[in-house]
This record gives sequence, structure tokens and C-alpha cells, in this order.
Amino acid sequence: MGDRKRIALIGTLDTKGEELRFLKEAIEARGLQTLVIDIGLLGPPPFRPDISRQEVLREAGLELADLLRGGDEGEAIEGMTQGLALLLQRLHRQREIDGVLAIGGGQGSAMASRGLQGLPVGFPKLLVSTKVAQAGAGAYVGTRDILIAPSVADIAGLNRLTKRVLQNAAGAIVGMVQGGVIAEEEDHPLIAMSMLGTTTACGLRLKDRLEADGLEVVVFHALGVGGRAMEEFLQEEGAEVVVELAVNEIGNYLFGGLASAGPHRMEVAGSLGIPQVVTPGNADFINFLSPDTVPPRYRERRLHRHNPQATCMRLEAQEMELVGRTMAEKLNRARAPVKVIVPLKGFSIWDREGGVFYDPKADRALIEALLGNLREGIEVMEVELHINDPEFADLLYAEVKRTLELAPSHHKKTRGR
Amino acid sequence: MGDRKRIALIGTLDTKGEELRFLKEAIEARGLQTLVIDIGLLGPPPFRPDISRQEVLREAGLELADLLRGGDEGEAIEGMTQGLALLLQRLHRQREIDGVLAIGGGQGSAMASRGLQGLPVGFPKLLVSTKVAQAGAGAYVGTRDILIAPSVADIAGLNRLTKRVLQNAAGAIVGMVQGGVIAEEEDHPLIAMSMLGTTTACGLRLKDRLEADGLEVVVFHALGVGGRAMEEFLQEEGAEVVVELAVNEIGNYLFGGLASAGPHRMEVAGSLGIPQVVTPGNADFINFLSPDTVPPRYRERRLHRHNPQATCMRLEAQEMELVGRTMAEKLNRARAPVKVIVPLKGFSIWDREGGVFYDPKADRALIEALLGNLREGIEVMEVELHINDPEFADLLYAEVKRTLELAPSHHKKTRGR
Repeated sequence: MGDRKRIALIGTLDTKGEELRFLKEAIEARGLQTLVIDIGLLGPPPFRPDISRQEVLREAGLELADLLRGGDEGEAIEGMTQGLALLLQRLHRQREIDGVLAIGGGQGSAMASRGLQGLPVGFPKLLVSTKVAQAGAGAYVGTRDILIAPSVADIAGLNRLTKRVLQNAAGAIVGMVQGGVIAEEEDHPLIAMSMLGTTTACGLRLKDRLEADGLEVVVFHALGVGGRAMEEFLQEEGAEVVVELAVNEIGNYLFGGLASAGPHRMEVAGSLGIPQVVTPGNADFINFLSPDTVPPRYRERRLHRHNPQATCMRLEAQEMELVGRTMAEKLNRARAPVKVIVPLKGFSIWDREGGVFYDPKADRALIEALLGNLREGIEVMEVELHINDPEFADLLYAEVKRTLELAPSHHKKTRGR
Repeated sequence: MGDRKRIALIGTLDTKGEELRFLKEAIEARGLQTLVIDIGLLGPPPFRPDISRQEVLREAGLELADLLRGGDEGEAIEGMTQGLALLLQRLHRQREIDGVLAIGGGQGSAMASRGLQGLPVGFPKLLVSTKVAQAGAGAYVGTRDILIAPSVADIAGLNRLTKRVLQNAAGAIVGMVQGGVIAEEEDHPLIAMSMLGTTTACGLRLKDRLEADGLEVVVFHALGVGGRAMEEFLQEEGAEVVVELAVNEIGNYLFGGLASAGPHRMEVAGSLGIPQVVTPGNADFINFLSPDTVPPRYRERRLHRHNPQATCMRLEAQEMELVGRTMAEKLNRARAPVKVIVPLKGFSIWDREGGVFYDPKADRALIEALLGNLREGIEVMEVELHINDPEFADLLYAEVKRTLELAPSHHKKTRGR
């Protein structure tokens, strides 16, 4: 295949053949190669793909003829989705492709995006979709850096509007692939940190101090996707230390908020043997989007409308107690050092004297449940500070530095692309 | 500025200065120019932008000092949003920029995306955002082809993860801008068409026949954004004829479905003097997303779960009656010929004998309200066919052709970029 870059082009060739041909020509006109992958299940493809639907299915050990005989459309779609995901991972591993461009309506976007989500952050990937403007992009991008191009018009034929959108999509993937890999720098020790705007004062001061010492800090925005992205990142690339300034995703999971990172949040670092410095940052609330996304059972609770797409709810003492206990259970399973540091004067910008979420009794319930259930060997420190006091960030800084001196390296030094 | 392409770079320089500098360098390293626009409102910018926050505000006739003195953060944000939108439109009109790249968290994404939405389809525009994976992309892209890049990690400093994402964003905008304008083709007469999957059989047959005659057909997916995009397209670029195969957005507006295109759907073509061929296609239902998005008052109604993100609800006779009357009121105001063609055997794939939404009594309520309220001069045809019968598409085809022969051209022959 020479040394020309190659872009995988994915779509249902039976319904979107004309558009895929347009993309193929636009990309090849810019001197790159394409690899057309057909994930159609209905009619015959109008031109021969490089990888046929039969080959995609075989990647998952399936035969198209069997699936069609079965007559279960759902099963066929699921098989194609799995086959594509496996195929893309293999092509990436074997360095056969340098980027991926997929197009789809509702069904095609769902199939292709699962495959795209299996490729690492930094690997160029773009989805042209009819659906994102209505249904949102969350389901399609997951925790990944998938660029989403809304199609504006339906992807139903070439015309002046769809051509503009497709031409730009081809340009974008070519530009990303030609952008090349970022020059490798010195490998700085890496700190992964969870944070929200409500603990930014703490997080940014801590980050600045660590960076001044030559450390690298990656910050994850703890709104569900962020926590999941952090823990996938730990699995793929590791880190020296994890700092938790935003544990709200645990309360969101327990009480039905809209920023859940699933049942295993705060378990991954410990299971990988990565040391953790943990605070109850943002433990005082859970997250909803617009006010109408707050379930009826919570309408009478203490709510704070931060912006039109962010409504937060104060957790009460008995809920805080469960968050604390849950945190302890998770941390008790860690295979590496854990240090818990509690700011007794409040856990978020809103949770301080005079703040909208100030409730020392509820905070106390969490603290007692957390500290009372931690196993031996986990170090604990309680300090008469608010989480956003500069002294608290400095205390975390000292703790991270101490942990780095004690611990062996857990940073895998890999690169995503 | 020579003939090198220039990309506007937008963000809050006080909080995202480091990232904007990285993007500026990545773009300039590829031989393009940048124009850094600061929309920050808090701290001082770490480097001098090409267009300062003061200049952005002045575009909207505002002074930063006044806004800061007022102390109303919302007002300052709204002013900056307006100023940016006006600035971008002026820069685009004066051909000062060839593409736009913006980065933002929640607030920055909201401000920048309003500006991006004011630029035409086809003009390269990309937003790197921390928010889309949680809150969805719909609010940010609107009816436009804004590429969305999820940031994965928080945009809070440069590190190996954010660098990969930003490097790809720079590559994508460079690639789009370098992709250039699509070669102008012969100006085919243009047909704009609304459609959904449930009337695809009709729409695609009609489209194929029209295209075989050298006409160009742009299809819009009538899920709210689609109808709005079609009507903006009519305003900006016109069309020879509008064909309505999906009027479900009217019912969605009236009865609280999730595919409303606002109160003015089906009024734009008529007000612009563009002839219309109208069917009650998909008038039989309104749209929701996942089943839990169906409001409690509708839970006991006739629902059809089309896929995990598409739940449709059959409208009942009295609702259909209101849809029909509303259509008539809108069409009565048209300043150009309107032809209404009614398929008596059903309006969508589900609305036929044996189908999940079959209900001839409800259909009859719409037909009587529609036809009974149309003013003189609007031609009407009722046919004993289902909307997806090939003969029905052929009948529409004949009607579009006849309309084209009668009417003067309403196609503006402009290009979006």
C-alpha cells in the first residue's frame, strides 16, 4: 500500500452508496488512499467495497446467509456492529488505517459509532450523522474524541447541500490524518484528576503547582462521561497518582442523577495498583440538566440552577451517609496506597457557610460513614479548611509529591496513536 | 493578508489561553493564518488577541466597562454572544475568514455556537467542547453543519490527552478550509422535500424520477431540526418547488412532541412565493425519543417503539382535526400555487390496513378539516392510494413537473461559501 495515508470509509453501501463514492473520490483527489467498508444489510452494493459486509460479519464469526435466514433484523444489526468493532481494532493494530470516516442515519450512526468508540483517543475519527441534532451526540461519542458532523439535510442523495457537508467531512478527516502525530516530548510523570467547576479553585492551584515541578496533569470533568473517560485512560495509559476532587458521580449513580459514571467509578485506580489521593469534593450534590430533567420525586428538594443545562441537587444526610459508605467500600479494595483528606468546612463552592448547599450535618454524615468504614492501612486526614481554600490545595500538593516519592511508576508511557 | 487562508480562532482567552495558543501554532505550522478572537470576560488575556473582547462587544454597540460596572454576568455573556455573532457575519461577508474554530466549556460553547450558527452551511466551522457528551449537541449545532469535537478531558491545560484532541481539531479545520469550494455545476432546478423513513418509499421514487429529468432534490429529515433547516434553506437559497411528505412537525408543535419545528412550519415557502405540493405524509403521528421521554399524559396512548431513540405516538381523531385545520390556515396564506394531494389509504408506513397506526376515522378527521378549510384557488386531489404506493409517487412527480412548467423560477442560484 506504499506510504500514502489510508482512511477507512464506513457506511451502508445499499442506501448511501452515492455518498460514499463522493467521499472516496474527494479523499483520493487529495492524494490519500481509502478503504471502503460496507455495513449494509439490505440491497446489493452499487460498487464493490474493499471490505464486504460478509467479511465484516466474519470478523465476529458470523455468516450473512445465516443471519438473513434467521430473519431477525436486530440480530443482524448487532452482528454487524460487533464485526465492525473487531475489524477496526484489527486494522488499527496492524497499522492498516490512519483515520476513519463513517456516515449514517439513525441505524448506521449507531452501528458505526460503536466501532469508532473502540479506537484510542487521538486516532482521527469522524461521523457524519443525520441524528445528532435531534437525539444528541452523547450516545454516539461515548467517552471518545469522535468528531460529529451534523448532516443538516437527510443523507439521501447528492445535492448542493449534502455535497458541501460531505466535502467538508472529507476535508476534515484528511486534515486530521495529515496533521500527524504530536512530537513526543519528555515523559513527565502523569497525574489524573477529577474536577468540576465547583472545585476549580482547588484543582487549578494544585495543577499549577504540580506542573511547575515538571509533572503533567490531565483533568477530567466529572459529569459521568468524564469519570468513565478517566478510568478508561487509566486502563490504557496509566498514571502515577489519581487525585479525586469530584466524587459526585458516585451519588449520581446511587440516586439517579444524570452524571453517573456507572457502578465501578473509583474502583479502577485501586484495582490497577495506582495510588490515590481522595477528597469528598463535590460529594454534596448530584447533577441534572435543565430543570425539567429533575424527577418528580426530587422537585421539592434543595435545587440550584447553575445554568440552563445544569441543575444540581443537594444530597441529604442519609444519602450522604450512603455515599460515604460506598466510597469506603471501593477504596478498601485498592491494591495501592490511598490517602483520604477531608476539608471539614465544605466540599464544593456551594457547600460553605452562606452557600446554597451549606449543610454541615449532611457533610458530617458522609465523613462519619467514610472514615468509620475505611480499613486499616488507609491514611486519613481531617482539616479545618474549605476545599477551595488555597491551603487545602497546598496540602494536596504535598500529599501527591509524597506519594510520588514513595510509589513505583504506574505510567505506561504509551501513546494513543 | 496575502492569499493565504485564514481561520478565526475563538475562545475565552483568560481561561483557555494556553489551548488557543497551541491551536494557533498548529494551524500556522501548516501555512495558514489565524485571527484570534477573545470572548473572555474575567481575567486578563495571557497574549494579545487579534480582536479583543472590547472590540467584540463594540460590534454589538456595547462597552465592556459598562457591563462590568453593571455586574450582571448574564447580561455580559449575552452581549458577548451577540457581538461575536455580528462580528463573524461581518468577517464572513467581507471575506476576511475562510473557516472558524472555537473551543469552550459549557458557557464558552454556548456563546461561540450562537456565532457559528449564523454562518452558512458549507462554511467550515468546528467547535471543541467539553459539554456535548453529557448535554447533547443539538443546542450547539442547531440547524447548521457545525462539526463538534468532544474534548474527552476537561479543557483545563495542555497535556497528552488535550494535545491530541486539539491537534486533531486544528487538522480538521485546516483540512476543511483547504478542501476548497466544490466545483460549480450547471444550475439544476431545485426541489426541496420533507420526508421521514416512514414515507421513504414515496420520497425516493419521486426523487429518482425528478433527478432522471435533471432536477436536483434536497431531502430534509422532518424531526424538528430538519423542518427548520429546510425553511432556512428556502430563505437563503430558494427552490423551485417544495414537496411536503412529512408534516408531522406540525402535530409535534401542537401536542408537545419532540420533533417540533416551531410555530411557523409550512409558512415560509408560501410567504416567499414558492409553489408547494403538499400531502398529509406522516401526519398520523408525533415523535418522542426513548420511551421515558413520552409524557405521563400520553403513556396509555397508541405508541410504537421504532428504535431505542424513536418512539412515535398515533394522533387521535380530534388531534388530527386540529392538524388539518392548522395546515389549511397556513396554506391559505401562501402567495404562490399550492396543490394538496391526499392518499386516502394512509399517510405513513404504519398507517395502512394491518399497520400499527391504522385508523381511517382519525385520518378522515384530518382530511375533512384540511379540505373543508382551504380557501378557493388551492387545488385538491384525493386518490384511493396509500402514500407509499408507487402510483402515488408518480402522481406527485407529474404534479411537480406541471408546477415547474407553470411557475417562474424561485431559486436564488447562490452558493453558501
